[in-house]
Amino acid sequence: MLEATISGIGELDSGAMAEAQSRQDQLTKPQGSLGMLEELSIRLAGIFGKTIPPLGKKVVIVMAGDHGVVEEGVSRFPREVTPQMVLNFLRGGAAINVLARHAGAEVRVVDVGVATEVSGPGLIVRKVRNGTANMTRGPAMSREEAVRAIEVGIEVALEEIDKGALYLATGDMGIGNTTPSSAITSVLVGEDLELVTGRGTGLDEEARLAKVEVIRKAIALNEPDPGDPLDVLSKVGGLEIAGIAGVILGAASRRRPVVIDGFISAAGALVAAALAPSSQAFMVASHLSMEPGHRVILDKLGLRPVIHADMRLGEGTGAALTFFLLEAAAKILAEMATFDEAGVSGPVGE
Amino acid sequence: MLEATISGIGELDSGAMAEAQSRQDQLTKPQGSLGMLEELSIRLAGIFGKTIPPLGKKVVIVMAGDHGVVEEGVSRFPREVTPQMVLNFLRGGAAINVLARHAGAEVRVVDVGVATEVSGPGLIVRKVRNGTANMTRGPAMSREEAVRAIEVGIEVALEEIDKGALYLATGDMGIGNTTPSSAITSVLVGEDLELVTGRGTGLDEEARLAKVEVIRKAIALNEPDPGDPLDVLSKVGGLEIAGIAGVILGAASRRRPVVIDGFISAAGALVAAALAPSSQAFMVASHLSMEPGHRVILDKLGLRPVIHADMRLGEGTGAALTFFLLEAAAKILAEMATFDEAGVSGPVGE
Repeated sequence: MLEATISGIGELDSGAMAEAQSRQDQLTKPQGSLGMLEELSIRLAGIFGKTIPPLGKKVVIVMAGDHGVVEEGVSRFPREVTPQMVLNFLRGGAAINVLARHAGAEVRVVDVGVATEVSGPGLIVRKVRNGTANMTRGPAMSREEAVRAIEVGIEVALEEIDKGALYLATGDMGIGNTTPSSAITSVLVGEDLELVTGRGTGLDEEARLAKVEVIRKAIALNEPDPGDPLDVLSKVGGLEIAGIAGVILGAASRRRPVVIDGFISAAGALVAAALAPSSQAFMVASHLSMEPGHRVILDKLGLRPVIHADMRLGEGTGAALTFFLLEAAAKILAEMATFDEAGVSGPVGE
Repeated sequence: MLEATISGIGELDSGAMAEAQSRQDQLTKPQGSLGMLEELSIRLAGIFGKTIPPLGKKVVIVMAGDHGVVEEGVSRFPREVTPQMVLNFLRGGAAINVLARHAGAEVRVVDVGVATEVSGPGLIVRKVRNGTANMTRGPAMSREEAVRAIEVGIEVALEEIDKGALYLATGDMGIGNTTPSSAITSVLVGEDLELVTGRGTGLDEEARLAKVEVIRKAIALNEPDPGDPLDVLSKVGGLEIAGIAGVILGAASRRRPVVIDGFISAAGALVAAALAPSSQAFMVASHLSMEPGHRVILDKLGLRPVIHADMRLGEGTGAALTFFLLEAAAKILAEMATFDEAGVSGPVGE
């Protein structure tokens, strides 16, 4: 299924993009003056294959999973917070619920690997295993489990698209998950581990340096192969990161834009891009996280975030806000008057 | 009226801010992890004097005026575009109309100094004079006219607040208006003119350097006093910039947040802050413009923009988008569950 999905990812529609660019240049504003809103509108045209991108149902898919490496003290919060927050999502009390409602988006919560039993109305249970193993003692999971977790993401994305989702976004929940995200970033980008490891939910500098050493130990022990994204994902990754990669691949295979939330989602995007470079064209950046590894991944993927708000929560919070900006971009193309229609003069001498 | 408005501007409510901060720290997320959304929510609490800031009517006030200095070739667009765009605003076809509708905001358009007659349904006509004079040959306007244009802004803001506006934003229309904005910025901030003068609607580098020389000539001729904001505004400013300063002062005097759009609005904010330093606490930054002077002003005023989208259109477009983020900030305080309510564990050992 993974292979079929990857091979099903197409290219942007260059004809629709050219028409969208031409329309942007006729709208009543100096050419290019709406900056990234114009760029986004043109990419949406290319993704949907329509000069005027459609508006419609928006869904944030939040992948939840646990991490054996929390035994090493890499997070300020205890592991039990993962299922507690899953229940908070189901009841509508978390930040992602508030921001998704504000953006007019729906939230889906997927248990792809929470360590304990968790259930509640609306929870999509596709648990691949009860959390990852402690990666400082061996691989986080098997290669087969990593593939299965990606496929969970693909399946959920395709189900949501079949039910009408036009715009997708990724989100995450998993205590300790900046640790595997930093590991993946360091290995797949080839960047110094120290520069891509941050304070997570609020470590002090001493604890951050200890976290760097935990990751260094895990990488030294497992020897992930930078040329093999599934090897990296299984050895030093996470189940929800795999699920996020799957959501991205699934969305791209059906020509849907997928908004990448923060650092954890970007680690999933890095895996997706390594598996299927053609998926990058369907990714939309959201905010710039305080986690230093986030910018490193966005630069690698050629993605630029519009929102700079010092956020570092995850859950899909930055992505939900970005839905509003994507819709704004589409509406500019759909609703603005042209110079001709409005009787407005163009630049002198042109 | 100007003096009374200035003296009517109060301070933020520190009690409401402390309560809002305390509530933020109990919500189900790592403390501070929503970054600037948290900061904005707390400032809104201080502005409205309520722990949970109210939501309600949002209005973008677009000030339109013309500039005699366009005779010097400082803009790519002809002066007639100012009234043409005013009509486009009234018909709902401009970018600000699209983005304000998307944000659920209303748009008011004020002719505070368009050079020619313009009329249409909904236009607020408060013309102080038919555009400014060419500031390379003398002052752009008299001190009395500058005060009157500020008072127009105050009046319109107070009228909108009386009609129920809770959130205000500034916008501008005026061919050539980056030229007086750069002049004001250079004089009031004391920054090198060349570093605060940009390409406007799309000048090439040669034309930009010519624009710098035009402004340099105007400053040398008029000798605006950096310690007297009304002197600066009248000699090298603009009528819509004065109107924007007035909107800000009016909003602050009634304890309403006012979102500052891009470079032209920021020049108005700089004047407002020089006249009434207490008004700064009521200003909210929106986007970071491509115009280099914009960042200089924001730094001077201690304002940080959330949206980084290479925009350079004005009209209030960045401010309209920012309404959505302000509402998101308020809703976080209003709607998120606390750790206690959700049964979520806090950090280990705390």
